[in-house]
Amino acid sequence: MSLIEDRLRQLGLELPPARAPVANYVSTKRSGDLLFVSGKVSDLRGEVGREVTPAQAKAAARNTALQLLAIIRRDLGDLDHVASVERMQGFVRGAPDFADHPKVIDGASELLVEVFGEAGRHARTATGAASLPFGAAVQLDLVLRVE
Amino acid sequence: MSLIEDRLRQLGLELPPARAPVANYVSTKRSGDLLFVSGKVSDLRGEVGREVTPAQAKAAARNTALQLLAIIRRDLGDLDHVASVERMQGFVRGAPDFADHPKVIDGASELLVEVFGEAGRHARTATGAASLPFGAAVQLDLVLRVE
Amino acid sequence: MSLIEDRLRQLGLELPPARAPVANYVSTKRSGDLLFVSGKVSDLRGEVGREVTPAQAKAAARNTALQLLAIIRRDLGDLDHVASVERMQGFVRGAPDFADHPKVIDGASELLVEVFGEAGRHARTATGAASLPFGAAVQLDLVLRVE
Repeated sequence: MSLIEDRLRQLGLELPPARAPVANYVSTKRSGDLLFVSGKVSDLRGEVGREVTPAQAKAAARNTALQLLAIIRRDLGDLDHVASVERMQGFVRGAPDFADHPKVIDGASELLVEVFGEAGRHARTATGAASLPFGAAVQLDLVLRVE
Repeated sequence: MSLIEDRLRQLGLELPPARAPVANYVSTKRSGDLLFVSGKVSDLRGEVGREVTPAQAKAAARNTALQLLAIIRRDLGDLDHVASVERMQGFVRGAPDFADHPKVIDGASELLVEVFGEAGRHARTATGAASLPFGAAVQLDLVLRVE
Repeated sequence: MSLIEDRLRQLGLELPPARAPVANYVSTKRSGDLLFVSGKVSDLRGEVGREVTPAQAKAAARNTALQLLAIIRRDLGDLDHVASVERMQGFVRGAPDFADHPKVIDGASELLVEVFGEAGRHARTATGAASLPFGAAVQLDLVLRVE
């Protein structure tokens, strides 16, 4: 009986199907107690501040975090093996004068704290990318501690 | 009696007040012997190569590193707990033809070596960002080893 | 007698001379069992999608990975000390509408798997950079596990 699965149910969250990497790498790599999680882009495409609003991008960051959780569950077998979220890197494909990257990436940070509680609080860098794979609006990667 | 505090005094350096994160994450996250330090942007705003000169950006990188040290001291209690600086990632908000990212990020690297000596030498990636939070010119994050 | 040197010979690969860092940092930093490898830019310059084709950029990513291997060999003494490639971060200097970052960075990922086999499979983030040091088309950094 998984504590995190219970939490997801209480939150009314359902994880999407976990997708395979789009190229010659692995979705997650275990390194001792650490788990490096590959970058995942949002389904939402477009430049934030132009075709995409910050609110849409924030929702996309949350959805992308859900996709990362689906991948992590598939690779670890159970999200209860996540001891802690250590670091998130978030890229926002913003117009050159876009300045609200933290608010966008908060969509993902908030989800991780809802799901994992205090252990979900992480160090974070939110940065602007000139372009992203598939024209996506947001990209996230993670470093976790597993047990 | 802190060795690093002595060093800071010898160098004539004073750390600024440590600021809280601007969103839903933590400034530093301890993971075993590692400390992941969240990205911090410079107070200096503008695009390097346009409104901002490389020399101004280098000084801003140094100041941002001082702010990171202030945060690390607050969270660890004493900078003597830093065993080594492992990795720095530096983003420079450069015009598309800007090419001198290493010189800008050197402002931070030099400070870390002044303060921590050989233990302050780190692996590093200096990259260009299309946009940065708050329109900042420079953004830095760190991975440290602590004891 | 080095297994990886044998593999390089079988693949017909020769590592280029290892270059020194261009600024005030170190090429690699050992941290416990991890090795953080500093970002290295391609010799190929230009924006992918404009002056540079994706195929040229993919070849440049492969060459940059060879340069990283040369640096790692110099610093570790022997590539057999690499237990596993944990994570690669790849930046592509793409035009704002460039979307094929994964295909470009595959040039490096494929090489690492050719050389290290299963241990060379890594987590990865492929992102767009607005500008890169020296106007380069590609930039890579690595986290390895060493023994």
